[in-house]
Amino acid sequence: MKISIKNLGELILKSLKLKYSIEDAKNICDVILFGELSEKTTHGIVRLLIGNASVLAQNPKGKPIAKKITSVSTLIDGNGNPGMLVGPLAMNEAMQLAKTHGIGIVGTNKSFSSSGCLSYYAEIIAQNNLIGIIMAHSPPSTAPHGGIEPLFGTNPIGFGIPARPRPLIFDMATSAISFGAILKAATLGHELSENCAIDSAGNSTTDPKKAMEGATLPFDSSYKGAGLAMMVEILAGAMPGADFVGQNPEAGWGNLFIVFSPTLFGNLEQFKQNVYTLVQRVRNSKTKDGHKIRIVGENTIAKRNINLEKGEIDIEDKLYQELKQSAKIN
Amino acid sequence: MKISIKNLGELILKSLKLKYSIEDAKNICDVILFGELSEKTTHGIVRLLIGNASVLAQNPKGKPIAKKITSVSTLIDGNGNPGMLVGPLAMNEAMQLAKTHGIGIVGTNKSFSSSGCLSYYAEIIAQNNLIGIIMAHSPPSTAPHGGIEPLFGTNPIGFGIPARPRPLIFDMATSAISFGAILKAATLGHELSENCAIDSAGNSTTDPKKAMEGATLPFDSSYKGAGLAMMVEILAGAMPGADFVGQNPEAGWGNLFIVFSPTLFGNLEQFKQNVYTLVQRVRNSKTKDGHKIRIVGENTIAKRNINLEKGEIDIEDKLYQELKQSAKIN
Repeated sequence: MKISIKNLGELILKSLKLKYSIEDAKNICDVILFGELSEKTTHGIVRLLIGNASVLAQNPKGKPIAKKITSVSTLIDGNGNPGMLVGPLAMNEAMQLAKTHGIGIVGTNKSFSSSGCLSYYAEIIAQNNLIGIIMAHSPPSTAPHGGIEPLFGTNPIGFGIPARPRPLIFDMATSAISFGAILKAATLGHELSENCAIDSAGNSTTDPKKAMEGATLPFDSSYKGAGLAMMVEILAGAMPGADFVGQNPEAGWGNLFIVFSPTLFGNLEQFKQNVYTLVQRVRNSKTKDGHKIRIVGENTIAKRNINLEKGEIDIEDKLYQELKQSAKIN
Repeated sequence: MKISIKNLGELILKSLKLKYSIEDAKNICDVILFGELSEKTTHGIVRLLIGNASVLAQNPKGKPIAKKITSVSTLIDGNGNPGMLVGPLAMNEAMQLAKTHGIGIVGTNKSFSSSGCLSYYAEIIAQNNLIGIIMAHSPPSTAPHGGIEPLFGTNPIGFGIPARPRPLIFDMATSAISFGAILKAATLGHELSENCAIDSAGNSTTDPKKAMEGATLPFDSSYKGAGLAMMVEILAGAMPGADFVGQNPEAGWGNLFIVFSPTLFGNLEQFKQNVYTLVQRVRNSKTKDGHKIRIVGENTIAKRNINLEKGEIDIEDKLYQELKQSAKIN
């Protein structure tokens, strides 16, 4: 069904406000809407409603607790709050540190749900004329290279780069497919693509149910992708005191925000101009078939902007019913 | 031929001292020996001697110039010095900043040769109980995803992580193959592997001569690898004022060292213990054939240590002759 973005936002907020403060609800709502509007729906409303790791299934013990450890770093104990609540807090803190000191590092632990699309954070950081390197750790789903046990999370890495005329953003999972996408395929009875997953015996499979008992593969099925997944497991999991390779599940999902200013080395406007030049050079470079090169992140932002302009989007009827129910509306 | 590591080191030093100060020569020699001893010979003696981008082919205008811009960052103008001279300077500066402030960022520009194996830097940073994220930008060789023009460099990313009983290091090119490896294959008449390179018309090729007129591919032949290559081009090229996508060749090759302490978030010994636990969990996880999982970087360090223990290594006769010549020994 079609729903106006305004109504959808109000419905999400209404549902969130039953459990969270207005400010927290607004932050979470923005992350969820980014997922829906940019058509990365695996990071949209489903993350609010569906499953044990949904926003509404969380049981916060209190507010997140920010621990100042050095002047350039902050550690945020999520205290059981959703990743989509802790993520914006961490981002804002990292930006504040970077505005004061040129750089800021913020880690999080003890949230037990996704912090959402890293592109969401990447864009805001870049809009603030800062560079962001963002990593998110999640529970075991991906096998190491050569292995068959799920050990690493989906473990995405995101980058936000200030540029003209708009930020350059890039966000990639280090796994070939997310666990959420496998769940969705299983529900809809779809097959998975080749080289995304293995069954519990380590055989390549396109059957989502077998993949759920096995593991997903690193995005490139090689030691490089697995190495990057391992680095995220360490930097966004072990370092901020979150879980890592399933050794300490009660420490939760983790995040790392490294935020710094292009002015650490020179002039901001020159940097933005240079990134523009670089992007244009790539966009207009030769291709075999004469097509333009796609620039990372542009599709995400374009879809979001088109949907914003239209003022409405499609969501599944069933999801709408569940959303209404969660907002206590009949 | 076999040569003792001691003699090889002396020969390299002798050759370097004809052009550089003793301190600089020692730094460069260490980077080169790391390449040889760890059997990453494309980053060994060949980089001292062969081609326009060799250490000995450089024409420094004077000493590198360190510009302090903020308390947590330094920009090093290489002033025409070799990457293997500027790299260790940048690394030491970044470590010093991180020891003082918890974090340090150092960028470099205006060197015109490789800074060597990033694993070399990663290991030293981690031995100093610091975490390093290192990126190196080099001249255009790799096509963007969907493109056929060489625009990005080999653009490696390296990570150094303090751990028990030894550092964990990881170093990967974002290209499928280095330009050096293509040159070597062309010289030896070898074929390239599949999916590494394209000819000038954009067709996949295993012919190194055709690849030299075309481009190398991102390591995973996908938008993710190309996206990472682009991020390195921006962060290690454009940001520190080096060249980017061939737009400003006189600004040279660039590097970025982001170094920070695990103590930004907690206890160092606990962190090292956790990384040990993580590595052991991965190493001993199930495989299809019962083999142990290989841990990134361990092969590199193991080879180096075995060669150090043996006290001698193999080098090509021709290279030895050139080395002797460069050191003015008959």
